[in-house]
Amino acid sequence: MKASQFFISTLKEAPAEATLASHKLMLRAGLIKANASGLYTWMPMGLRVLRKVENIVREEMNRVGCVELLMPVIQSADLWKESGRWQFYGDELLRITDRHDNEFCFSPTCEEMITDIVRKEINSYKQLPKNFYHINTKFRDERRPRFGVMRAREFVMKDAYSFHADFESLVRDGYQPMYDAYCRIFNRLGLNFRPVAADTGSIGGTGSHEFQVLADSGEDVIAYSDSSDYAANVELAQTLPLSGSRAAAQKSLEKIHTPNTKTIEQLVQFLNIPVETTLKSIVVEGKEDGEIVLLLLRGDHEFNDIKAEKLADVKSPLTMASAESILAQFGANGGSLGPVGFKGKVYADFATEKGADWVIGANQDDYHYTGFNFGRDAAEPEFVDLRNVVAGDPSPCGSGSLKLARGIEVGHVFQLRTKYSEAMNATFLDNNGKSQIMEMGCYGIGVTRVVAAAIEQNNDEKGIIWTDAMAPFTVVIVPMNYKKSADVKAAADKIHAELLAQGVDVLLDDRDERAGVLLADSELLGIPHRIVIGDRALKEGNVEYAERKVGESQSIAVNEIVGKIKNVLAK
Amino acid sequence: MKASQFFISTLKEAPAEATLASHKLMLRAGLIKANASGLYTWMPMGLRVLRKVENIVREEMNRVGCVELLMPVIQSADLWKESGRWQFYGDELLRITDRHDNEFCFSPTCEEMITDIVRKEINSYKQLPKNFYHINTKFRDERRPRFGVMRAREFVMKDAYSFHADFESLVRDGYQPMYDAYCRIFNRLGLNFRPVAADTGSIGGTGSHEFQVLADSGEDVIAYSDSSDYAANVELAQTLPLSGSRAAAQKSLEKIHTPNTKTIEQLVQFLNIPVETTLKSIVVEGKEDGEIVLLLLRGDHEFNDIKAEKLADVKSPLTMASAESILAQFGANGGSLGPVGFKGKVYADFATEKGADWVIGANQDDYHYTGFNFGRDAAEPEFVDLRNVVAGDPSPCGSGSLKLARGIEVGHVFQLRTKYSEAMNATFLDNNGKSQIMEMGCYGIGVTRVVAAAIEQNNDEKGIIWTDAMAPFTVVIVPMNYKKSADVKAAADKIHAELLAQGVDVLLDDRDERAGVLLADSELLGIPHRIVIGDRALKEGNVEYAERKVGESQSIAVNEIVGKIKNVLAK
Repeated sequence: MKASQFFISTLKEAPAEATLASHKLMLRAGLIKANASGLYTWMPMGLRVLRKVENIVREEMNRVGCVELLMPVIQSADLWKESGRWQFYGDELLRITDRHDNEFCFSPTCEEMITDIVRKEINSYKQLPKNFYHINTKFRDERRPRFGVMRAREFVMKDAYSFHADFESLVRDGYQPMYDAYCRIFNRLGLNFRPVAADTGSIGGTGSHEFQVLADSGEDVIAYSDSSDYAANVELAQTLPLSGSRAAAQKSLEKIHTPNTKTIEQLVQFLNIPVETTLKSIVVEGKEDGEIVLLLLRGDHEFNDIKAEKLADVKSPLTMASAESILAQFGANGGSLGPVGFKGKVYADFATEKGADWVIGANQDDYHYTGFNFGRDAAEPEFVDLRNVVAGDPSPCGSGSLKLARGIEVGHVFQLRTKYSEAMNATFLDNNGKSQIMEMGCYGIGVTRVVAAAIEQNNDEKGIIWTDAMAPFTVVIVPMNYKKSADVKAAADKIHAELLAQGVDVLLDDRDERAGVLLADSELLGIPHRIVIGDRALKEGNVEYAERKVGESQSIAVNEIVGKIKNVLAK
Repeated sequence: MKASQFFISTLKEAPAEATLASHKLMLRAGLIKANASGLYTWMPMGLRVLRKVENIVREEMNRVGCVELLMPVIQSADLWKESGRWQFYGDELLRITDRHDNEFCFSPTCEEMITDIVRKEINSYKQLPKNFYHINTKFRDERRPRFGVMRAREFVMKDAYSFHADFESLVRDGYQPMYDAYCRIFNRLGLNFRPVAADTGSIGGTGSHEFQVLADSGEDVIAYSDSSDYAANVELAQTLPLSGSRAAAQKSLEKIHTPNTKTIEQLVQFLNIPVETTLKSIVVEGKEDGEIVLLLLRGDHEFNDIKAEKLADVKSPLTMASAESILAQFGANGGSLGPVGFKGKVYADFATEKGADWVIGANQDDYHYTGFNFGRDAAEPEFVDLRNVVAGDPSPCGSGSLKLARGIEVGHVFQLRTKYSEAMNATFLDNNGKSQIMEMGCYGIGVTRVVAAAIEQNNDEKGIIWTDAMAPFTVVIVPMNYKKSADVKAAADKIHAELLAQGVDVLLDDRDERAGVLLADSELLGIPHRIVIGDRALKEGNVEYAERKVGESQSIAVNEIVGKIKNVLAK
């Protein structure tokens, strides 16, 4: 492809509103163009990348027997009412009314639609298992679309749905092959990623992995073992009870005046003590009406609401206690609360079990206790896992300790089980002629997001660094003075034609621009392999070859460059 | 591909609501599945056809240097207000309000969006001409969606837009190459089609061709010359003035009582006269306020409102005169109107110029004149083209006479000129540094509709008849007793593997169904080439080969069948 027959539109500066590296670089390289908040055009250069991702996804889906179809993006509200999601999805669901005042939505996912199709098409165990996917436009009406295509409103997603006669088949014929296919996809794309155990969130069901592309700018935090394959979203990674016995109490309980210390930070600054010696109190509603529950964890630890919500005596969804009920039951306001004298249920985090002589709220405004000890000053609480893991925690797999990394979620596999098939009555006759509910899995890849995540992980001050698999062009030929030097033009055209004949995805940048612009653009665009053709080197029979991720150029004989490129790409 | 790894879902009967052959067959063959009114899922079998059409379209677009990008389907109302189409598009435009109450639409076409991109990206004549396309989901909120994907609400369209420095470039670099590309596309798809001159309708501009797939069920009527390449939509085909002199008047003007004859049909029946001797009157509003204009044409001819709207004294858009103004100016109601005594402008169709002794309304309710003659009984009208052509009319190209055929519009090329570029200020600096408005062309193909049109043109009582280019699979292997006969299974698997290795798109129908079901499905699905493998023939070393469009089977040696298929496909 010659640049003159294509469309290159690079910018010196990214628009000010772009803050994330991938967003800036995609705009500067002309991969995307903003049309409205959260709405982007994939410009010719960007679309080539998107299609390469799509094709790899498609190949790996087909390889595991997932069958492609294409569901409409506009879907009747009736189906969404059947599953209950019409009510519960919230404002991210773009609701639409047609000319006859019928209700529709722009689908953000297709569980309802595929379940409707399958319940009409499949009625026997002989037709199961079956796995369908499509790659299509989705819409989520984000409150604050940002970060370019990383969190756009309109985006391209591959979503797959598998249907099974029983749970064993879901795991064996659906979840595991799809998990493996996802690993192959992200490996083929050349991304540094981890599959991590994840919470199933609002979609429900049990068993789920996120596929996280590691990048410092990622919104998600992943905990992984330094000596096993264990990895989990930090929200889900468990902490373990501490071993050993509790430290002996050294101090007696003493109430001290701590004015203007509403937060742990203010408290430790006021008392000039290590934050690890403090306990913080969180008060939530209990299962029974009017009941409230006290949760205690170390001052430096981060509260994990997903874990708290699963506790036996805690109301789900997790609900913070009101200021009124706190005052009524503790005799004090938030900022000075603690277990001393509290009659209700108390849970304390595992990390507090072996400690002694804590600083904690005294249930009197502007007062705290020092020298607080479980068992002596208040009843022993129930010790549970209440916090996010931190680096250095022992890995819950039993092997090694945890490290933390940031990631960008690009894929997700779920064991949905019967959440949708039960609500929508997707049944089949088993081999005894008995009606059974189907088991379901669902599997998503944010195709447009993969492109942004890859850039987020692979860029430098000059621009994007593509892998061969994702690059809009694998090779770029940069001729110096293509329009003026007949020799350069002849050599560039010949190498271009030979590479095309070899099936190499090559761009000949024949634009009438200064050499510096062409070179800078080739780096901004991140084309993995570059051949520079200049008059001087050409007189000696040479061209310059450079790999984008390495940077340094090497001189190659002009009649060897095509062979060189073939060798490099074959690796 | 083995059927057991795919998804075949055929029906004995089409749902009652399907009336069109393509709609019935697409449902019966399991190519599509209805989700809601005008909304369809492309099932795995149908999607394969759709992708083959898309790929051919894409290849031919790329070949003429049209550059692919991908614009969002949800578009801001602001752009549509700039062009004026937000107001004028009507109820077919699906309007959407997001969570922040901003207005959007689901794009039915993308003139505004691409013009917005181009005016920001292109500012010099050096960057022109440029031609962009995308293949994407569109939505038109049809009042009465019907005929399956032929007139669905959500559909896939290829739309392209070219931008030029001047009109010559629009024709030379945009319109003509795209016209040629469209011819190649429909030829490659194996369709019997005609490019026909067309009206530009509400989209505006001048110069336009429709690409019509010929089929008896088509909604459009095409007029074409029996001895030249001339073809036009019947709405646009011109009639020519008659040659020769006018027939001499034989009768005097006589007013006769014609009770209950409000229509031409009633009149000719009442008087028992040939319809060709009558004139009908159509009264429309004139250019000036309060003015009305009388249009006359032969009783048997069909009025053409597009032609009438272009007459100098007629108001545009064409507006029928009100019953009150007719009564005021003629002294009679519709059904008895005529030119005798009428003071306003009168146009008469060319076909009436040489006739004499007409029967026409007498401007008195329930009365008509016989023996009416232009010039003698009323002033000579202006003779113009006012009607649709009929078969046998001389071709306006000057060669041969016209024939009529029905067609399905699958593509359209337009010379938009400056309609959008002017409204949206899409300018560039010419080689004198002067700001100029860009010239624009636009070019659409209804990708999903092409599939339905192909079936409409090519089917029989057994099912669909695909061309090799569009078929979901090129070859189907139908083994009799695949599950029970080891010989049949071995032969089927071997031929399947060999054809796959040759790159042939082959389906091995290994479903555990009766032979009759497999054979009937292969015909319903319309796979062009079928290999039947049965125990008896196999013992003699033979299999049966049949071409779907021919029907008859021939016996082929089992070790020659792969070579045979390769030969047939190479043709």
